[in-house]
Order: sequence, then C-alpha cells, then structure tokens
Amino acid sequence: MKIGILGGGQLAQMLAQAGAPLGMEFMFLCPSEEACAAPLGQHLCNDFDDATALDRLRRWADVATFEFENVPASVIEILAAHTRVYPPARALAVAQDRLREKQTFDSLEIPTPAYTAVDSQEQLSQAVGRLGLPAVLKTRTQGYDGKGQTVLKQQADLLSAWERLGGVPLILEAFVPFERELSIIAVRSAKGETRCYCLSENHHRDGILRLALSRCGDPLQDMAERYVQRLLQNLDYVGTLALELFQTEHGLLANEIAPRVHNSGHWSIEGAACSQFENHLRAVSGLPLGDTSLVQPAAMVNLIGRLPDLGALTAVPGAFPHIYGKSERAGRKLGHVTLTADGPAIDAEFQKRLASLLRLTGEMQLATTMERLSAA
Amino acid sequence: MKIGILGGGQLAQMLAQAGAPLGMEFMFLCPSEEACAAPLGQHLCNDFDDATALDRLRRWADVATFEFENVPASVIEILAAHTRVYPPARALAVAQDRLREKQTFDSLEIPTPAYTAVDSQEQLSQAVGRLGLPAVLKTRTQGYDGKGQTVLKQQADLLSAWERLGGVPLILEAFVPFERELSIIAVRSAKGETRCYCLSENHHRDGILRLALSRCGDPLQDMAERYVQRLLQNLDYVGTLALELFQTEHGLLANEIAPRVHNSGHWSIEGAACSQFENHLRAVSGLPLGDTSLVQPAAMVNLIGRLPDLGALTAVPGAFPHIYGKSERAGRKLGHVTLTADGPAIDAEFQKRLASLLRLTGEMQLATTMERLSAA
Repeated sequence: MKIGILGGGQLAQMLAQAGAPLGMEFMFLCPSEEACAAPLGQHLCNDFDDATALDRLRRWADVATFEFENVPASVIEILAAHTRVYPPARALAVAQDRLREKQTFDSLEIPTPAYTAVDSQEQLSQAVGRLGLPAVLKTRTQGYDGKGQTVLKQQADLLSAWERLGGVPLILEAFVPFERELSIIAVRSAKGETRCYCLSENHHRDGILRLALSRCGDPLQDMAERYVQRLLQNLDYVGTLALELFQTEHGLLANEIAPRVHNSGHWSIEGAACSQFENHLRAVSGLPLGDTSLVQPAAMVNLIGRLPDLGALTAVPGAFPHIYGKSERAGRKLGHVTLTADGPAIDAEFQKRLASLLRLTGEMQLATTMERLSAA
Repeated sequence: MKIGILGGGQLAQMLAQAGAPLGMEFMFLCPSEEACAAPLGQHLCNDFDDATALDRLRRWADVATFEFENVPASVIEILAAHTRVYPPARALAVAQDRLREKQTFDSLEIPTPAYTAVDSQEQLSQAVGRLGLPAVLKTRTQGYDGKGQTVLKQQADLLSAWERLGGVPLILEAFVPFERELSIIAVRSAKGETRCYCLSENHHRDGILRLALSRCGDPLQDMAERYVQRLLQNLDYVGTLALELFQTEHGLLANEIAPRVHNSGHWSIEGAACSQFENHLRAVSGLPLGDTSLVQPAAMVNLIGRLPDLGALTAVPGAFPHIYGKSERAGRKLGHVTLTADGPAIDAEFQKRLASLLRLTGEMQLATTMERLSAA
C-alpha cells in the first residue's frame, strides 16, 4: 500500500514509522528541505499547491492523507478528483474555520463556549458587550499552538487586539474558566467502524502542549465518546480525529477538532495496543481497525526548543524518547518522551518519575505539581 | 548515534525501526541487493570482508554490531581495531562453533545434551557407540534453521550422514526427548547491568521456528535466568543474547546461543515494555537498559514462504503484522505477526485467535493444537 502524505514533519514521520511494519510505503509532499519524515520515504520538496508535485503524488499513491489541517482546500480538490483522500475534505473545511467548527458543534448538540463572529471593530465591541470579559479573540483560520489568538481582559485591550488580529475574519469566544483541558482521540474506518482512545489530560504553557496524561476510567470518558462519535458520523470521517475539550463546572465544552493524528495522542504508541498512527493508516488504507484500549497508563512530555541528554532521559525507568531529528529552535517541538507505568494504575512512583522527566525538559512548575501529587 | 550493522535482513530492519525514535542512524553492510533493511539507512552492497566497505563502515559508525553469527572472525578483528564492536568477538566465536559452545556450557555448569567431537568416520562410529541412537550429527559451524544437521536413527544412517556432512569438523549430540523447546532472551549493558525477558515457548517445523509464545511466570524462568546470566557474565557480553533450551524430564538442557536479537523474541516489540531490538541498541550504544517485563501476553507466528492477505491478518483482534518486504520464496521468512492478549492472562479467546492466525499461515497442525487448548 502506497500512502501519500501532505506534510513531512514529525506526525508524518511517526505515521511512516507505524506503517513500515505493515509493508506500507510513503511519499511526502513538504516544501521544507528539513522535513524530518523525508528519510522514511520519497520526499517531494515542493509547495503544497505545486501542480507537478501533486500530479506525481496522486499517480504514485493508493491513498492520500495529511498531517496538518491548513492544507488549502484547492489542493484536496485536485487530489480527490484522482485518488482517495482521507480524512474527507469537509472535515478539513470544518477544522480550518473556527466559526464553522463551532456551528458544527452546535448542530450536533455538543456544548461549546459562547461565541460570535467578528468582522469589524464595531462588531468586536458589540460581541464583547454580549459575551462579557474576559474573552478570547481568534482568527477564524490558520491558528495553531496559541498563534492567531489573544485574550481580552478589559475594554482597553480591544483596540490593540483589533490592531494585531483585525483585517481577517475573527471569532470572539467567551473565556472559559476550566478545571482541566482534555482531549479524546477517535478513529473511524471507511466501513464506519469506530474506536476511541481513553481521555488525555493536557497541560499547556505559552499555548504549547507540554504534558499529556492518559486518563483511563475517567468519569467523563462516556460523554466525550458520545460527542466525538457524533462528529465522526456527521463528517463521514475516515482516519484519526482529535476533539479538544474543556472540563468546566458546567460539564464538557468542545474547544476544537484536529482532523489528524494529534500531539495529545502520542502516548498511544507505547500506551495503547494499537497507536493513533497505526490506526490512522489502517483506516485510510481500508484495513480493520486495531485495539485502542490502554495496555499501560502512560504520559507524554514534549521536548521543546532544546533536547535533553538521551542518556538522562532513558535513565528514567519506563521512559521512551522519540527524537524527531529537527534542529534546535526556541518553541520548536523536537521530540517527546512517553512514560509508561509499571502496573495497571498511576501510582506515586509514576508521578515521581514524571516529575524527573519534566525537570529534565525544564518544566519546573509542572514537575513540582506532579511531585506534590506523588507525595499526596 | 551512528550504528553500523553487518547484515541487512529483517533483524537489521527491526533494529533500525527500533532505533529511529531514539534518533539513531544506520549503515548496513550486506552483499544482497534485496537487503530489506536498506531503505532505513545507508546500504553498502558489498561482501562482508570487503576492505573498502569495512573501512567506510568503521569510519562512519560510532559502534558496530551484527544481525547474524556467521560473520567471519577476521571481519570483527578489522572493525574492532578501529571502533567499538558489540557483542564481543569471543561471544561470536563461541556461538560459531557448536563444540566450543557446548564446552562453554560445561564450564559454566549449564547442563547440555551429551556430545562429542567427530572428525572422521571412525570417530563417528565410536561416538555413536558412546552416546547411543538416536543422535544428531551436526556441522560445528555454519548451521542455522535446521541446516547442516541430520538425525541418526539406526546404524545404517551413519554412512549416508557422513557422506552428507563429513569433511568438515562435526559434533554428535545425544538425541534429547524434550517436552518443550524454550528460549530465554537477555540483555547486558556495557556497565554490566542485565535484564531478562520472560521465557518463550517455541514450536518448530522442518527446523524453522513457526510459533513463539511468551510464558510469563513459567516455573522454569528462574533456572533459565541463572543460566543465561552466567553466560552474559562469562562472555563479558554487551547486547541482546538468546539461549535456546530443551525442557526434559531431567530439567533444562542448553541447546545453543545466538549472540544477537532472535526470532523467538519478536513478540517483545508489542509484548514487552522495551523490545529486544531497542534494548540491543541501548546496550551497544551505552544507554541504560529498558524494562523487559511483559505488558501483555503475546505470541509470534512467522510468515514463511508466502504472505497471507494483510486484511485477513489485521482482522484478527490483537494481531500486529510485520512485513519485511522480501520477495516470496519457499522456506523464506517474509514477516511475522504478533498476537497480543486482551487481558493479563492467556485465555481461551487468545488461543482461538492464535489458531485463526496459524490457519491463515498454513500451520494447520499447530492451529488444531491451539484450538484444542482453547476448548480445554
């Protein structure tokens, strides 16, 4: 089976690593010369809308997929006219536009923070009047890792926020005082078979995911599964999808979807019977889905900006580093480490090891939190 | 870390797959143009004793290792003069010669079947007089997968056996009526840290491994660990080593060692926290060892000669195919499938699924045996 992937970063890399044992071959279309997935297949070093490259990709591949949601819709159209493309174009279109995404949540009765579209400075003022402050102003498209958004705390913030983000379609969202950030990762096959992974509890700093913890048996699992199942059905989805959620005093609120494998699911490589990567490939290539159940509780710590010593990382019992092979740069995701538990439950020893790992990556505050949990 | 590997078959391939997430790079020296590991690194398509290729390998690599034990000793000497080579040359020399191997078992008080060296037709006759019949005549070197050996059942077999194998140093071994064939896989770091995997129960047909089952909690685990630990220490071993054993009415008897990752340990990829492949790489590259404990009971079924349909294989719940990318040929190992259990124990459902897998690979007799076990 030949898989064409739009993008050649770490998600494409981990897809290719998961697909190799299944005898799958890969071609990556990615304009970056440093595409870290490149050694695992053929690399077309072209822009995503390069007609010649797209033609080559679609002729070679049995199926095409993507590792990020900002692929131009026109590109998907060109590919879809000639080959199978999964996930479907509509899922991509919904995920690319925060307004359409929120409207989809509404139509499926999936609760979401209050929101309103903002296309002018006057509308921003009216929207703030309706939703109150604090609120979050976001671009409707092209945002990721906290980029393209700003928090409005007082009336005085409106002007600078408008100056920073205005001129493109925006959305204002009510600020949600959440207890936890969660995500659920699910997968659907072309035949409509679906599977869900257990909830991930996610910790961000500066808008970037730092720590994700598998939460098997979480009381919110059923509700999250119901929501994500509605999305999979409605979008006639094929592949792996992530739904990001806020846990609030009013229950779960949907934040956004990612129509692809997701950073908060990286622990599934070691933690689940079949990883989100292998299941995405199984789904898009028409194979039966693999078991998503947790084989051991796991956490994932991102390696951001600089790489700790590999010897120090592997010296933490149960730690499995994944190094992407990218050069160091502030804020860049260079790798991650999965930490697996010895037994069937997360215990004090696991929390202590997790704290060591977080300290190695410079996440001192999170490390202290985890250490407190291990002492409790 | 740059790893040079002598050999480019499926063991090298799975080493490279395990090393990629650790940021390791690979170079393979392998005379076959079809070396299935080749896409995962640089491939030197030369003979193992090609001086230019060896020079290139040793200059490039931080450490060299091998995926098979028939590497000429002279090659290891050339490499070892310039770079680290693990496992050590002595382990290779012991494993290459069945007589020296048996003598090593003796010196470490590891019980082994009775044996005697045979260098002439007359010695063969005397050896049969001493050990009795049936007995197994083997070449001292170059044997694998049942090649280079023959069973002597009656006096009349001696002449034909001598004609087939004579002319090279031989060894005659007493025939052992065994209850089970087992293996234990262990790993030792350069610092002398050791870890053992749980026993594997192995089923052969026509001298080729067909099925390997993890046997966590087996009453013979402790004895097997004691034996393999003695070998690791004595050989000042670094890397993964397999010790093949016979379970007889007189206890465990050592059959042979393999100074490398081993077919009977392939289930460790899904079944153990850290696979035999990753641990071999951790050992030879000076990293701390990973956890060898079983996370879920697992079995491995080899795909030999022809590849079953991938859809049928993946439709068996808990089945994870590994396709090596080699062309089909009778008796050739083309891949394997790991079957993982849902729960902490091997149950009837697991046996039933295992029977389905075995039937898909044409192992009808083994399938029937497993089915009987599931009904019992």
